[in-house]
Amino acid sequence: MARTASLSGFPEWLPEERLVELHVLDTLRRTFELHGFSSIETRAVETVGQLLRKGEIDKEVYGLSRLQDDEGDTAAKADPHALALHFDLTVPFARYVVENAGYLAFPFRRYQIQKVWRGERPQEGRAREFTQADIDVVGDGELPFRYDVEIALVIAEALNALPIPDFLLRINNRKLAEGFYTGIGLTDTAGVLRSIDKLEKVGPAKVAELLKEELGATEDQAQAALKLAGIRTKDTSFVEQVRALGVSNELLEEGLHELEQVIAAAVQRAPGRVVADLSIARGLDYYTGTVVETILVGHEQLGSICSGGRYDALASKGNRKFPGVGLSIGVTRLVSRILSQDLAKASRSVPTAVLVALNDDDSWGAAQDVAAQLRSRGIATEVAAKAEKFGKQIKFADRRGIPFVWFTDDDGKHQVKDIRSGEQYDADPATWTPSEEDLHVRVTAVH
Amino acid sequence: MARTASLSGFPEWLPEERLVELHVLDTLRRTFELHGFSSIETRAVETVGQLLRKGEIDKEVYGLSRLQDDEGDTAAKADPHALALHFDLTVPFARYVVENAGYLAFPFRRYQIQKVWRGERPQEGRAREFTQADIDVVGDGELPFRYDVEIALVIAEALNALPIPDFLLRINNRKLAEGFYTGIGLTDTAGVLRSIDKLEKVGPAKVAELLKEELGATEDQAQAALKLAGIRTKDTSFVEQVRALGVSNELLEEGLHELEQVIAAAVQRAPGRVVADLSIARGLDYYTGTVVETILVGHEQLGSICSGGRYDALASKGNRKFPGVGLSIGVTRLVSRILSQDLAKASRSVPTAVLVALNDDDSWGAAQDVAAQLRSRGIATEVAAKAEKFGKQIKFADRRGIPFVWFTDDDGKHQVKDIRSGEQYDADPATWTPSEEDLHVRVTAVH
Repeated sequence: MARTASLSGFPEWLPEERLVELHVLDTLRRTFELHGFSSIETRAVETVGQLLRKGEIDKEVYGLSRLQDDEGDTAAKADPHALALHFDLTVPFARYVVENAGYLAFPFRRYQIQKVWRGERPQEGRAREFTQADIDVVGDGELPFRYDVEIALVIAEALNALPIPDFLLRINNRKLAEGFYTGIGLTDTAGVLRSIDKLEKVGPAKVAELLKEELGATEDQAQAALKLAGIRTKDTSFVEQVRALGVSNELLEEGLHELEQVIAAAVQRAPGRVVADLSIARGLDYYTGTVVETILVGHEQLGSICSGGRYDALASKGNRKFPGVGLSIGVTRLVSRILSQDLAKASRSVPTAVLVALNDDDSWGAAQDVAAQLRSRGIATEVAAKAEKFGKQIKFADRRGIPFVWFTDDDGKHQVKDIRSGEQYDADPATWTPSEEDLHVRVTAVH
Repeated sequence: MARTASLSGFPEWLPEERLVELHVLDTLRRTFELHGFSSIETRAVETVGQLLRKGEIDKEVYGLSRLQDDEGDTAAKADPHALALHFDLTVPFARYVVENAGYLAFPFRRYQIQKVWRGERPQEGRAREFTQADIDVVGDGELPFRYDVEIALVIAEALNALPIPDFLLRINNRKLAEGFYTGIGLTDTAGVLRSIDKLEKVGPAKVAELLKEELGATEDQAQAALKLAGIRTKDTSFVEQVRALGVSNELLEEGLHELEQVIAAAVQRAPGRVVADLSIARGLDYYTGTVVETILVGHEQLGSICSGGRYDALASKGNRKFPGVGLSIGVTRLVSRILSQDLAKASRSVPTAVLVALNDDDSWGAAQDVAAQLRSRGIATEVAAKAEKFGKQIKFADRRGIPFVWFTDDDGKHQVKDIRSGEQYDADPATWTPSEEDLHVRVTAVH
């Protein structure tokens, strides 16, 4: 099924592939709404000034210019009012919260499922246009830590409902890491995080070198930082392991306590789905506490399929702060993998359950009446456009993947044929219903 | 409710407004799928060459350039490989059909609901970023005319299911108009259509002038063209009225017969929703037969809320032609109007039906258990984050628009309170369900 996109980095799905994506989107939406998250969308564009607000963007951004604009397009780079496509949903959401603070009830829970764009070099698992599904809770002034626990549980439930292999949320806490680094005397905590973030790519020896060369760490400090990053437990035993490293720091204690709460709740409510992983750093981003990355077990090279965390300072309006916590699922990354590896499939390729065949060209109106009766009971139905031989009409249904063909003879007697089994029987358009299995397209994991 | 968008022409909705939009989108999707249309999405970007393929674009297009690209952005205008945001869904769909022809079953029925962008001056009913909902049927080589009839009926059914005022599909046929113009000796039929298209804006006297000055029409020819454009009937009587003008032309006859079929079916299956309106021209677009515009009765100044028609030559691959017929609903235009005029509203502002209150901070886990039981039966539920006084927790639910608050006392006795009526009663988390009316958010028209 996997075809090559005609523009590299801009994937498009065939109709039967889109059914898998729709199933993923519908499942996420349903889970998010069951947990009381409201849907919002933000515009696709932000001003360059807004995107740059948090300092340098390390993402490749697409700027916009009107083709018909004679002023020329080069203004975009310099002008903070120029427009650009958003590269994630968190920065636009922060702007939305600040702009609409007077109209929102806090803590504000929202989900947002939209496309985002990054002009990076496309590769497996990384597209230039892709869909993200985000949930966040944002408070006005303060946001209880409990939401960090809740967000992780909601995401685990949402991912669990998808037709994907096992996944694992790898969770850490910035306070824990920063407190520990400070405690061992490494004060450029952002620099240490940046180096630790490279651990999986370059290995511990290289990271130790970076810490010593770039941040002036001693061998002992470098080894202590690496020891912390090596801790990975499926339960709360990481607390003891960190304490055994003998570092004392207030922020470290706060981080330990927070991460302990998340892991303890997850062990109980999402068993096997979460691990405390003290190597997780989340690069240069705006996180201030909980940080999360998620791997698909057996597909680790795909990268994180769901990332995020707590941010205490992303959005503010004068003295008013809006701390938040949120996670973002890489829908396109997941769906691409599901499709390329045939991890799930749709029970049929079209929404249609029934094709109403035509006896002759004049019977189109009567066929529409039958179709309307079926649709009124939620049965997706189309009517043949031409009164070809029945064999041809059946073949048409077969080619489109429609399971049932409806016949009405000249005396008005109705019959329906299951073209998979060949079984044909009398049926009343006012009452006949296909089995629950055939009523709608179902998407299921392939094992 | 109507706030001003922070970027002119880029509307964003509050959560309770988004519920109205979601209802519109869900209703359209449901109707389209009941009629066997498959969902697809195309990428937001096309190459400039693709967008220009049909000659000059009369839409304002947004070109893309990478902000970090040192090459400069000015290439976009000249380079046909440069990227730009799509300005409708028909041109991208035509490209998709040609690219994927080998994977699609024809006639291919698809719906497509996506954002499109036009850099035009924003005004009431016209945004720079807006959502369209399109249905099209495309054939391989040929496409029976019957699909023109079907598409009109499906759209009437879809619009009818929305919480909007009366609407009227105004339908014409290009063959009819072009055949008539040829029959009276006006051979630049595209030029005549362009003039007739201005009828509503400038009036008949000015159009007659244009026809005479720009196209060399005689007074008789101009008056005949205006007479044709003046015909408007709710049934098929337009056929007689056209014949009474005494013009004879083969293409005219073909067009009359086609339009008659559409109107006859609509009179029967969508009574009062359709009018034969021989003034409809659809400007410079690519249509070759049926053309449609749709007005919202009482909101005519909003412009057409649903337009489209038959195109026989939009997509081709070598000698292979893919004729199609389709209609496009202006979702943002409709939703903007619904919201600005309070034509519909949501029964509550959040998906949440129940807030589970906390007795004390240690009861959060037990509260999550109650919530999980309710959610397992499809009841959207959130748990309070803090064990504040019950009055405060009820106030919180009230502020968020949540109708029910759930209490569990220290003995494990459960009660639920309808905070609108104040009624409170014993309830079992394993069986209690709110009324059908309260289970989900409902969006209804306000009369």
